[in-house]
Amino acid sequence: MGLILYQYHQMETFKEQFIEFIHNLQDSICEAVEKSDGLSLFHEDRWEREGGGGGRTRIISNGKVFEKGGVNTSVVFGHLPENMMKYLATPHNSFFACGLSLVLHPINPYVPTVHANYRYFELYDEEGNPVDFWFGGGSDLTPYYFFQEDRDHFHHAQQEVCDRFDAGLYPKFTKRCDEYFYNSHRGETRGVGGTFYDYLRPNGAQNGKFWFDLVTSLGNEFVNSYIPIVEKRKNHDFGEKEKYWQEIRRGRYVEFNLLHDKGTLFGLKTKGRTESILMSLPPRVRWDYNFNPQPGSEEEKMLNILRK
Amino acid sequence: MGLILYQYHQMETFKEQFIEFIHNLQDSICEAVEKSDGLSLFHEDRWEREGGGGGRTRIISNGKVFEKGGVNTSVVFGHLPENMMKYLATPHNSFFACGLSLVLHPINPYVPTVHANYRYFELYDEEGNPVDFWFGGGSDLTPYYFFQEDRDHFHHAQQEVCDRFDAGLYPKFTKRCDEYFYNSHRGETRGVGGTFYDYLRPNGAQNGKFWFDLVTSLGNEFVNSYIPIVEKRKNHDFGEKEKYWQEIRRGRYVEFNLLHDKGTLFGLKTKGRTESILMSLPPRVRWDYNFNPQPGSEEEKMLNILRK
Repeated sequence: MGLILYQYHQMETFKEQFIEFIHNLQDSICEAVEKSDGLSLFHEDRWEREGGGGGRTRIISNGKVFEKGGVNTSVVFGHLPENMMKYLATPHNSFFACGLSLVLHPINPYVPTVHANYRYFELYDEEGNPVDFWFGGGSDLTPYYFFQEDRDHFHHAQQEVCDRFDAGLYPKFTKRCDEYFYNSHRGETRGVGGTFYDYLRPNGAQNGKFWFDLVTSLGNEFVNSYIPIVEKRKNHDFGEKEKYWQEIRRGRYVEFNLLHDKGTLFGLKTKGRTESILMSLPPRVRWDYNFNPQPGSEEEKMLNILRK
Repeated sequence: MGLILYQYHQMETFKEQFIEFIHNLQDSICEAVEKSDGLSLFHEDRWEREGGGGGRTRIISNGKVFEKGGVNTSVVFGHLPENMMKYLATPHNSFFACGLSLVLHPINPYVPTVHANYRYFELYDEEGNPVDFWFGGGSDLTPYYFFQEDRDHFHHAQQEVCDRFDAGLYPKFTKRCDEYFYNSHRGETRGVGGTFYDYLRPNGAQNGKFWFDLVTSLGNEFVNSYIPIVEKRKNHDFGEKEKYWQEIRRGRYVEFNLLHDKGTLFGLKTKGRTESILMSLPPRVRWDYNFNPQPGSEEEKMLNILRK
């Protein structure tokens, strides 16, 4: 018993460091997005959670480049609801969680939508002693028109970070990403992938610091993985046809987030702040019955990539 | 054992009659909708289900009155998936189901969206003997601007039908409707209600014929419950502001259908035809971060009714 308590008290914690990381990252991402947009600025809403903690929701809208986007952080703690304990398969109901979550929906259909998330979780026993912690996150790209070089740039930026830590990580993370962001009812991935990882915790080979360094390094690479693509495509000509297609595809984004995304469903079911969770939904969306792109078109090419 | 088999073989069945009912109703509703629209006609897609059966999807779009709508029938049978057996708490996995399902999304924000469904279900044992059957359905109204007389017309039409059968039915059905079409994550009903009922099966007081007559009478009343409202409002002036509000509210409709609607989720999870299921989604939708109507506006009045 003494030994176990000793272990508990000795457990590494990355709480303070990760909070600092997400707040700094929120600032630097917002700055880079505003600079790329050149017109709109983020508006911040601070909110408090009834059960403990709160967040900073930062929204940009009606920009020159970004039609709508959110770069949010939250730091929450308290008691886990029954269904979350079941989901995590834990007998412990006291938790701490913090993270950054972002979605950016550009105006120009040639600029891809991006999503990223970096998070840290701690669990405590009845006496408040920490018993477990882990990191999770990822970043994935959802283009409306396919450019191999954009996809490659986005993947390679993340792969290079992963490879600095362990060459085995990226292949696992990118496979999980394709599996996770999958609209099973359509037989389509949401986008062209990226990375997805969860439950990164100390194991025989790696300690907590290893995972902390990895996830924060990936977070710090976000701007470099995405903004150059925006810069390359933001002045691409487009017309009504391309906008129409973008809005149809945004419908699939909504379908994924509301039907399949565990983060969204879990957030809503645990009484998270609805407006902060659903800021991920695109600004304008279209559902046509049985929309099919013209055979041989660029739209069909995109679809074929998502279906393979 | 002999007695039980005897009961099985004697079980009433409404299969043929209900199939006839939904197909006739599909014709008459489509005719009334086309007449009210005055421009567009329904387009029919017939489809087959791998496990057995199929359907007739009828879609209207880009009309003068209706921006998008579907009036669908399906007649399906075969083996229930595991999760559906669990949901119905039945050991039997052989089923027959048929129904009509419709959603109409008008262009004019002063014309409410409407949804209706009339369905019949049978279950069989291992030897194919029928062991259970029931009816379900309902019809509910989703206005963007509130008119007491429209809400009342829609409810009264259905209440009068119910009351002809049993004065206790409508109060129960309309309460279930408000409980069912509820966006819990918003604290709002989807619309201003109507009726919702399920598992209507022979009991001590009523036989199958009673429920068959009730549900088919409600179905046959649909046109009268809704089309007069369309006629009254379809020429109402509106501008960009009203269209904006309609598109915001359509977002809530999408949220309900993808997050909460059992029919949609079940259909998608049991490999139903995605395009026929998701024809219920509105044509164009908008999500703004934290949209709030002006204090004292007609938009706020509508919202307050949905929140009470």
